[in-house]
Amino acid sequence: MELTSSTWTELAEVETDLAVLPVGSTEQHGPHAPLGTDTLNAEAVAEAAAERHADPVVVAPAIPVAVAEEHRRFTGTLWTDESTFRAYVRDVVNSLAAHGWDRVVLVNGHGGNVAALGEVAARIVRHDDAYAAPFTWFDEVDAEVNMGHGGPLETSLLEHANPETVREDRLDEAAAGASDRWGDWQGRVNLAVDSHEFTENGVVGDPREGSAALGEELLDEAADALVALLDAVAERDPRPTAE
Amino acid sequence: MELTSSTWTELAEVETDLAVLPVGSTEQHGPHAPLGTDTLNAEAVAEAAAERHADPVVVAPAIPVAVAEEHRRFTGTLWTDESTFRAYVRDVVNSLAAHGWDRVVLVNGHGGNVAALGEVAARIVRHDDAYAAPFTWFDEVDAEVNMGHGGPLETSLLEHANPETVREDRLDEAAAGASDRWGDWQGRVNLAVDSHEFTENGVVGDPREGSAALGEELLDEAADALVALLDAVAERDPRPTAE
Amino acid sequence: MELTSSTWTELAEVETDLAVLPVGSTEQHGPHAPLGTDTLNAEAVAEAAAERHADPVVVAPAIPVAVAEEHRRFTGTLWTDESTFRAYVRDVVNSLAAHGWDRVVLVNGHGGNVAALGEVAARIVRHDDAYAAPFTWFDEVDAEVNMGHGGPLETSLLEHANPETVREDRLDEAAAGASDRWGDWQGRVNLAVDSHEFTENGVVGDPREGSAALGEELLDEAADALVALLDAVAERDPRPTAE
Amino acid sequence: MELTSSTWTELAEVETDLAVLPVGSTEQHGPHAPLGTDTLNAEAVAEAAAERHADPVVVAPAIPVAVAEEHRRFTGTLWTDESTFRAYVRDVVNSLAAHGWDRVVLVNGHGGNVAALGEVAARIVRHDDAYAAPFTWFDEVDAEVNMGHGGPLETSLLEHANPETVREDRLDEAAAGASDRWGDWQGRVNLAVDSHEFTENGVVGDPREGSAALGEELLDEAADALVALLDAVAERDPRPTAE
Amino acid sequence: MELTSSTWTELAEVETDLAVLPVGSTEQHGPHAPLGTDTLNAEAVAEAAAERHADPVVVAPAIPVAVAEEHRRFTGTLWTDESTFRAYVRDVVNSLAAHGWDRVVLVNGHGGNVAALGEVAARIVRHDDAYAAPFTWFDEVDAEVNMGHGGPLETSLLEHANPETVREDRLDEAAAGASDRWGDWQGRVNLAVDSHEFTENGVVGDPREGSAALGEELLDEAADALVALLDAVAERDPRPTAE
Amino acid sequence: MELTSSTWTELAEVETDLAVLPVGSTEQHGPHAPLGTDTLNAEAVAEAAAERHADPVVVAPAIPVAVAEEHRRFTGTLWTDESTFRAYVRDVVNSLAAHGWDRVVLVNGHGGNVAALGEVAARIVRHDDAYAAPFTWFDEVDAEVNMGHGGPLETSLLEHANPETVREDRLDEAAAGASDRWGDWQGRVNLAVDSHEFTENGVVGDPREGSAALGEELLDEAADALVALLDAVAERDPRPTAE
Repeated sequence: MELTSSTWTELAEVETDLAVLPVGSTEQHGPHAPLGTDTLNAEAVAEAAAERHADPVVVAPAIPVAVAEEHRRFTGTLWTDESTFRAYVRDVVNSLAAHGWDRVVLVNGHGGNVAALGEVAARIVRHDDAYAAPFTWFDEVDAEVNMGHGGPLETSLLEHANPETVREDRLDEAAAGASDRWGDWQGRVNLAVDSHEFTENGVVGDPREGSAALGEELLDEAADALVALLDAVAERDPRPTAE
Repeated sequence: MELTSSTWTELAEVETDLAVLPVGSTEQHGPHAPLGTDTLNAEAVAEAAAERHADPVVVAPAIPVAVAEEHRRFTGTLWTDESTFRAYVRDVVNSLAAHGWDRVVLVNGHGGNVAALGEVAARIVRHDDAYAAPFTWFDEVDAEVNMGHGGPLETSLLEHANPETVREDRLDEAAAGASDRWGDWQGRVNLAVDSHEFTENGVVGDPREGSAALGEELLDEAADALVALLDAVAERDPRPTAE
Repeated sequence: MELTSSTWTELAEVETDLAVLPVGSTEQHGPHAPLGTDTLNAEAVAEAAAERHADPVVVAPAIPVAVAEEHRRFTGTLWTDESTFRAYVRDVVNSLAAHGWDRVVLVNGHGGNVAALGEVAARIVRHDDAYAAPFTWFDEVDAEVNMGHGGPLETSLLEHANPETVREDRLDEAAAGASDRWGDWQGRVNLAVDSHEFTENGVVGDPREGSAALGEELLDEAADALVALLDAVAERDPRPTAE
Repeated sequence: MELTSSTWTELAEVETDLAVLPVGSTEQHGPHAPLGTDTLNAEAVAEAAAERHADPVVVAPAIPVAVAEEHRRFTGTLWTDESTFRAYVRDVVNSLAAHGWDRVVLVNGHGGNVAALGEVAARIVRHDDAYAAPFTWFDEVDAEVNMGHGGPLETSLLEHANPETVREDRLDEAAAGASDRWGDWQGRVNLAVDSHEFTENGVVGDPREGSAALGEELLDEAADALVALLDAVAERDPRPTAE
Repeated sequence: MELTSSTWTELAEVETDLAVLPVGSTEQHGPHAPLGTDTLNAEAVAEAAAERHADPVVVAPAIPVAVAEEHRRFTGTLWTDESTFRAYVRDVVNSLAAHGWDRVVLVNGHGGNVAALGEVAARIVRHDDAYAAPFTWFDEVDAEVNMGHGGPLETSLLEHANPETVREDRLDEAAAGASDRWGDWQGRVNLAVDSHEFTENGVVGDPREGSAALGEELLDEAADALVALLDAVAERDPRPTAE
Repeated sequence: MELTSSTWTELAEVETDLAVLPVGSTEQHGPHAPLGTDTLNAEAVAEAAAERHADPVVVAPAIPVAVAEEHRRFTGTLWTDESTFRAYVRDVVNSLAAHGWDRVVLVNGHGGNVAALGEVAARIVRHDDAYAAPFTWFDEVDAEVNMGHGGPLETSLLEHANPETVREDRLDEAAAGASDRWGDWQGRVNLAVDSHEFTENGVVGDPREGSAALGEELLDEAADALVALLDAVAERDPRPTAE
């Protein structure tokens, strides 16, 4: 049940306490992939899982701007302060819970959101009338290609679920200006706060290693993992654990 | 230029300092119109104006959840605190401005956002490196039908721009449970903070008074008004006026 | 019962749950009217209504500095951030409510406060142990003259209730430098965040169109409207509606 | 120059960089003195000093509600959170400074405000374009009677400057229910956060020990001290010291 | 029972509701005393009292950085914003209370913390499930020498409890550059927000007037006062008084 | 150069721009290790590296209470809100930078702090006059034993650097009640926000697998990694990158 396209009277008849909130980002993904990559991919996984789940799952509209200041030097990247982002996510989850959808999975498509989502999910679990768990789709798949940034994993999922958004004719250019690895490392500390310090065109990894076929597998795998998580989340108690 | 579907390299070649940020809401719009009504309509107006404008206009992704606690009792309505909403809008505008798109119109589709948008736009004008102006599309059209809520104006624009989202077979039901007027008034003070106090099914006004043809006129009129506003905004100085 | 001049032992004997909180501003009102115009007028209306009301009404001290940054370029204007203003109003209302005066009307004398008062009143209604409603006196009167700023409405009420504060010998000067209309408009969007952009001497409208006699009528009308609102507010439930 | 009663054009001609901001409170002062005692006394001292000072001194409107939760159990006491109070004071001082009045004395009439005023004054000095110093009038006088609360010092100043506000016929009652000393002490730690724990009727000290004549002396002494402070403050640099 | 060196299983067996939280500072104390002076002294008093008390007293780790911006110009001084400091103290007290240790004395070693501690302790008493009282050790001793800063009181306690930290060979230098009095006074107002305005080497008072023997007496006296305070605090109700 | 034990005059002679800020926690570490484990270990690594480094390195006092609400059910655990923690760390780093020590490594001993430290370090790098990098000691060592919690890594370092704090006679008990793995997992999502959900006595891993000899190696390895990081950090530009 997508909130955006449903009426309130239709939703009032749905019996469920499960919801997913896609969390994306508007940020550079190299010369070949759109700024909406993370949002599109999070939506694809959220919708696929909602369809597959045995019980109804409410799908909230995706949060389009998130924690992405790291890409600030690449044109078009938008971002919000982590505190604002957490407050926004928390308010959305709590309004979902106000309608009885109080077990919420935050379906995330952007690595830069992971820490902030972990913090806000824990705060919701401890202090609000809802249970929330973050789920980052590319952490849940087993692939022989790297995650990178605008790399084969993300590009493959786009090629499968939103093929018109990938500039196939720029994949070579994307690969040529890419770096091999995220960050500028000393030991296990990344010294570079922003990505332009270590990637020329914003890409990390070689997007040519992906394919629409791989994207289909990834979506399948991620959606299954999310369905399994929803089943587990359905068993959690939504009451605040720390009050 | 839609940010969501563009790549950063494409955007880097665009010469403009104009951007529009659609601001919607996810909230009940009666039994006949979807929760995404305000977002869809704001996007439709923003995109139409961006297409018509002589110079390129950057179109940011729509903010999907906003100031809508007033509809909290109708299933599916999502909301955020006004402070969080303002902070989120301000961050998005400032990241647009970081790329040189520092004259931004906030294209709004929801009456409940008006006050908060006015406050944050003034703060941006006075204190940030950007000029921002709020534009609420239905305030800019001259129509013989009322605004209401889920009423003929909003429904008409949906019927034109997103016809599949309107449940035409429920328009009678929508009209039957609608109230005539927004609010519970004593003099010119609305005593009712929340809408369930004065409307049974969430509708104000009679959506049957609208039509797709009217919607086309409304979109035309609103898009023209927005184009004219963009021209005026292009002349404003983005530097902070109060520092 | 004015709080400022009463003792706590006198107040402890009052049986009422009604209070009014005058909300003014310290801001330019042209060469003919004092910076305290909005505060003086809000107090005049609040006191007149409290006197007329059948049951006792507690009158809190007026808030003297509010949302007036728009007049920052005119000497002597004071202002506070909207967030601080709302927090201050909320704290005052909640301390009134702590004594059992938990139906509070915010009697406002300044247009720039309207949005912020609406926001904080709704927050109080939903989340605190009080009911609050904003009342802007000049929105409640039917007059053939315009509101403007330092214009005939405000000047008339001063001429009646605080005649010594009006510089009658500068009314011509006031009118000469006044603008006809508030704002610098493109369609229905005011592009000018600050008033010096559209008024030379800070005045909007012609204060000579007013008079003490009109002021008496305005006070009468506004006080009656406020009495009626107090009666309506007395019926509201002070408990938080959203918790 | 009182801001409240002046016009902006009059103020624009004043040559000074000195301002005083009276800071009061609305709180119980026993059965004999009004809730506005602290505000009235702060205003009296501020105005007297402004009159005596050789150069013009701008007098801002008094802040009427401040840090007084300690009296919450006595009817009519109003209070605001310390953080809100500091933000409000800081905004007012900064708007005074925006007009060139950037050496500001906070003329305080309430002991409960002292700590918060000290904190905000230091923040202004270090970080804002203004110099601010707190001045609590009763700390600057040498009297043989105690301060207390609603005691001889405060009552005397009222009896001189606002004699109609003192209920002389209740002085005996005030004294009868008064405590000797502020607080409930263990060593030099006051265990009682709120005043009802140690005073039956809110009074500390015997207000009968004061008189209008003493009040005249106190006003004289406090106003002289404030004039001297203004002279010293005029020599301070308003630029931020920590940036 | 020191938290830092105990295991949770040991603490789980302790029967008490008393805790002390040492609050220090890292700030200049002249050429003879270490930056940790206030922390070391607060710890010494807290530990001595905990040992002497008949019932077990939990000793939290000392807060090492506090309200010390006034010493910013002397190398090595660290500080935090007052708001952050209060939030940090409040969180620590509330986590102590979560384990049943809900009567907490804030054992303070720094004059600059006094106002902020008073504010946060009152907030805890009124709004949280704990009772908290601030205790500043040097306010509780009767000595013939002055407090000053890095002066005889503080130096003596160091000489007794942490003798290795005092540079005895620099006491003459310390005294030579010291000022007699804290502040730059006009009447009873200190015009100097920062200490470098009135002391050349950061010292106020003559540290040579102290001694280890005096330090022993001071520790004895302060510890006894704290034991007595703990006894009094044990009788207070930890429930919030204002809710 | 430890700040706590140094005088400001000594520090004023040090020529360096490097500082380390140990960040610990006060939280349960099973029946065998003290609540101060993370603080003690962070201090040990910070001090060892400062000693080894060719140039002087300023050592700030350790932050003793941090992000540890996850252990709230185990007696004695203290915690602060993540926002407060970040604000506290940021203030300390900025006061270090005010003395010219503007390349700061946050030497962390607690896994629960990692996300919050990453966020605040990036904020400092982008917006403040300092460069900061987080360093979590146990992420920098290569060991054949697991990290766990109160497990072999942490216990070994204690056994070497603070042997008196380890209850060797309770290692068997610690191991008996330990869990094998941190968290309650569904796929790669940890469903358990708090640790008591998956460990009986708070321990994860078998502390008996460690030893003082291993601890010595770990300290050596971690200190070397930190020295190398300090060398890299010394090359970074402390100016804000985003302003």
